[in-house]
Amino acid sequence: MKYQVAIIGGGPAGYTAAEAAGKAGLSVVLFEKNNVGGVCLNEGCIPTKTLLYSAKVFDYARHASKYAVQVPEASYDLAKIISRKSKVVRKLVLGIKARLAACNVTLVTGEAQVVNSHTVRCGEAEYECEHLLLCTGSQTFIPPIAGLEETGYWTHRDALDNKEPIHSLVIVGGGVIGMEFASFFNSLGVQVTVIEMMEEILGGIDRELAALLRTEYTKRGVKFLLNTKVTAFRKDETGTIVSYENAEGTGDVTTEKVLMSVGRRPVTQGFGLENLQLATTERGNIRVDEYMQTSVPGVYVCGDLNGTSLLAHTAVREAEVAIHHILGKQDPMSYRAIPGVVYTNPEIASVGATEEALQTSGTTYRVIRLPMTYSGRFVAENEGMNGFCKVLVDENDVLLGVHLLGNPSSELIVLAGMMIEDRRRYSDWKKYVFPHPTVGEIFREID
Amino acid sequence: MKYQVAIIGGGPAGYTAAEAAGKAGLSVVLFEKNNVGGVCLNEGCIPTKTLLYSAKVFDYARHASKYAVQVPEASYDLAKIISRKSKVVRKLVLGIKARLAACNVTLVTGEAQVVNSHTVRCGEAEYECEHLLLCTGSQTFIPPIAGLEETGYWTHRDALDNKEPIHSLVIVGGGVIGMEFASFFNSLGVQVTVIEMMEEILGGIDRELAALLRTEYTKRGVKFLLNTKVTAFRKDETGTIVSYENAEGTGDVTTEKVLMSVGRRPVTQGFGLENLQLATTERGNIRVDEYMQTSVPGVYVCGDLNGTSLLAHTAVREAEVAIHHILGKQDPMSYRAIPGVVYTNPEIASVGATEEALQTSGTTYRVIRLPMTYSGRFVAENEGMNGFCKVLVDENDVLLGVHLLGNPSSELIVLAGMMIEDRRRYSDWKKYVFPHPTVGEIFREID
Repeated sequence: MKYQVAIIGGGPAGYTAAEAAGKAGLSVVLFEKNNVGGVCLNEGCIPTKTLLYSAKVFDYARHASKYAVQVPEASYDLAKIISRKSKVVRKLVLGIKARLAACNVTLVTGEAQVVNSHTVRCGEAEYECEHLLLCTGSQTFIPPIAGLEETGYWTHRDALDNKEPIHSLVIVGGGVIGMEFASFFNSLGVQVTVIEMMEEILGGIDRELAALLRTEYTKRGVKFLLNTKVTAFRKDETGTIVSYENAEGTGDVTTEKVLMSVGRRPVTQGFGLENLQLATTERGNIRVDEYMQTSVPGVYVCGDLNGTSLLAHTAVREAEVAIHHILGKQDPMSYRAIPGVVYTNPEIASVGATEEALQTSGTTYRVIRLPMTYSGRFVAENEGMNGFCKVLVDENDVLLGVHLLGNPSSELIVLAGMMIEDRRRYSDWKKYVFPHPTVGEIFREID
Repeated sequence: MKYQVAIIGGGPAGYTAAEAAGKAGLSVVLFEKNNVGGVCLNEGCIPTKTLLYSAKVFDYARHASKYAVQVPEASYDLAKIISRKSKVVRKLVLGIKARLAACNVTLVTGEAQVVNSHTVRCGEAEYECEHLLLCTGSQTFIPPIAGLEETGYWTHRDALDNKEPIHSLVIVGGGVIGMEFASFFNSLGVQVTVIEMMEEILGGIDRELAALLRTEYTKRGVKFLLNTKVTAFRKDETGTIVSYENAEGTGDVTTEKVLMSVGRRPVTQGFGLENLQLATTERGNIRVDEYMQTSVPGVYVCGDLNGTSLLAHTAVREAEVAIHHILGKQDPMSYRAIPGVVYTNPEIASVGATEEALQTSGTTYRVIRLPMTYSGRFVAENEGMNGFCKVLVDENDVLLGVHLLGNPSSELIVLAGMMIEDRRRYSDWKKYVFPHPTVGEIFREID
């Protein structure tokens, strides 16, 4: 069997590439060992958002009186929340399958092995290809901590499938995944403790916004241990005892469950990557050019596997770039305006440079801060909540970074991303008419 | 007293102009007979959105089981909903006052009278000005229908201040205002009947989306009488009897209250407009050029008074354009991408041309339709709801119009507005990275 494009891994990078290539008339084979959609759709972005939305509806009910609505009693059914999540995922997986089929993509379910840059084996069959895309994604990194394997723990996958209400949860790692689960379980009334090695949660996100979010969740009862290292786990009749150390000394937290969310690492093993002998970067990642092509012509790496951004939407764009390159279309990858979203309630959304990054690179910048309450709609729909818009500009007022706290930041941030990608000034927003009243109008208020 | 800029009317046009002029260092006097913020802030956009948000929270509670949250009982306190609305409005009015003060704007409370293009009188005082901006806005148009004055009726203002629960409401006029109140009172359990003269609700909005929204509200119990003319009102012990006629004949609806929302008309009287002898258009509106300047140099008309768009955000932009012109900055007004939003639940948002307009002008166009369920986030957060994205493009795939049904369309539509304003192709969206999962990603799916 001979294809123009073979793709290993059916996550956001893989299915996007397959669809784009198929639509362009290329013959495509896509290998996926589990469900298409990858971690993002099956056990990441989408399932967490369905859970978080149930939590949000529960929050609305509990705090309805802020809006003059009386709800004497509200409860949740975790088993049903999980079932609904599975239903949503199934629906979307079917949608992707249908679209792949419509683009004449051959979907092969199984563990693919790279034989060489033009040959992939899956089971007994061999597939020849002109171009090979590797999109195997990433997996949870579990640090080697004493007692961890013996006491047992959750990864995000277990947390997404657990149907039994719990009372307490220690989350090791206060990154985006950790904080989204902290938000979910906090809404459900679980005693949550977040243990973070660094001095602030949400590494990579604007420090000021991360601190504001942490303060908000502290008010809601989440406990944060920053600058704190987990040293050991053990179990007794009261639960799992998590030992930690920090500048103040050592301590223990007893908890019913432990969620490990320290980070993710590219999946580089189990599919014959070694047979390609791809050049790597100083940091040990696979080296790709701006068209996502590796040191071996015709071999591309898209998505988490290249270790650049580890975000589904980056993977999608990289996949398009790679297929465009195969099609002879110049469309280099740009990482200038990759948004990042934390789907807590309120949400954080961010695009472009952070202050920390600009300081590191020695770039001159100016900070503009606006309260979200400049937006009438924000005031109307966020009783008792503060939001925040932080804008970083260079000496010519060109936008460098935009950082938002407050709903619906996730849906607004791309407005800033478009401007940053095109190296535009914030004053350019003023020539567009923003509907009134919207939260997005905040961008027109920058001055 | 002599000012560089005198502004009559403190609504979105007036306060925006005052702030922009003051910030630029011009001396400014702003006349407002009531509260700054105008109809929009005091009895329009903002108060309706606070009410609609309370209704949304109530809807969430009543339909929480869709998301596996149990709310056995939910009720609302209309008096408190109204009080909260008033509190939000007060807060925002204070915000505008503070910003005007910070820009050194002299705010005069009273009924201003234009003496000539360089003189305004208010009470005993006379104010001289180099430039005069007229921003008096619009008011509800009440058609002369038999018995209307005798039986009594609500305008939007009464509906926004009514604290007594009602059982039934007839809304005369199914435009944006009518439909937003239909949505609000329907959520509260009121029997709503919408009577519309035209063959579809929401005139000016894409016909297909308007019909979808009508179908949705019909399911929820709102009754619609289209192509129907109200002929008379009378009262008996059962309530107000609204008589109508349509192609099928005549009929009556008995109702507790009647809301008149037939339309709005510019406020052209009561402030000495006649003393300026401004040229008018064929339709009878004040003629302005692309800098909002009238036939009398130095006199500008911004906002609803010029009769062009009757939307707060148009007024804001027009005010900026006028002040820029005074400052000698070339910044002509463009009406190519004025968004329109209907804050029902689900929302409708629209920008650029409609199919109806393109057909009228004989423009060749192509329609692209996408279900909102292409967005994973939409599926996660809109259980059992369908949304719709309709895109109109020319023969070069340049965007002409974008029409959305589904939340949060109001916040997404400006993404399309920016593209339409800049005459860009839908394929240009693909070079930007949209965060995943968001509803906004729908724009990247257009193909």
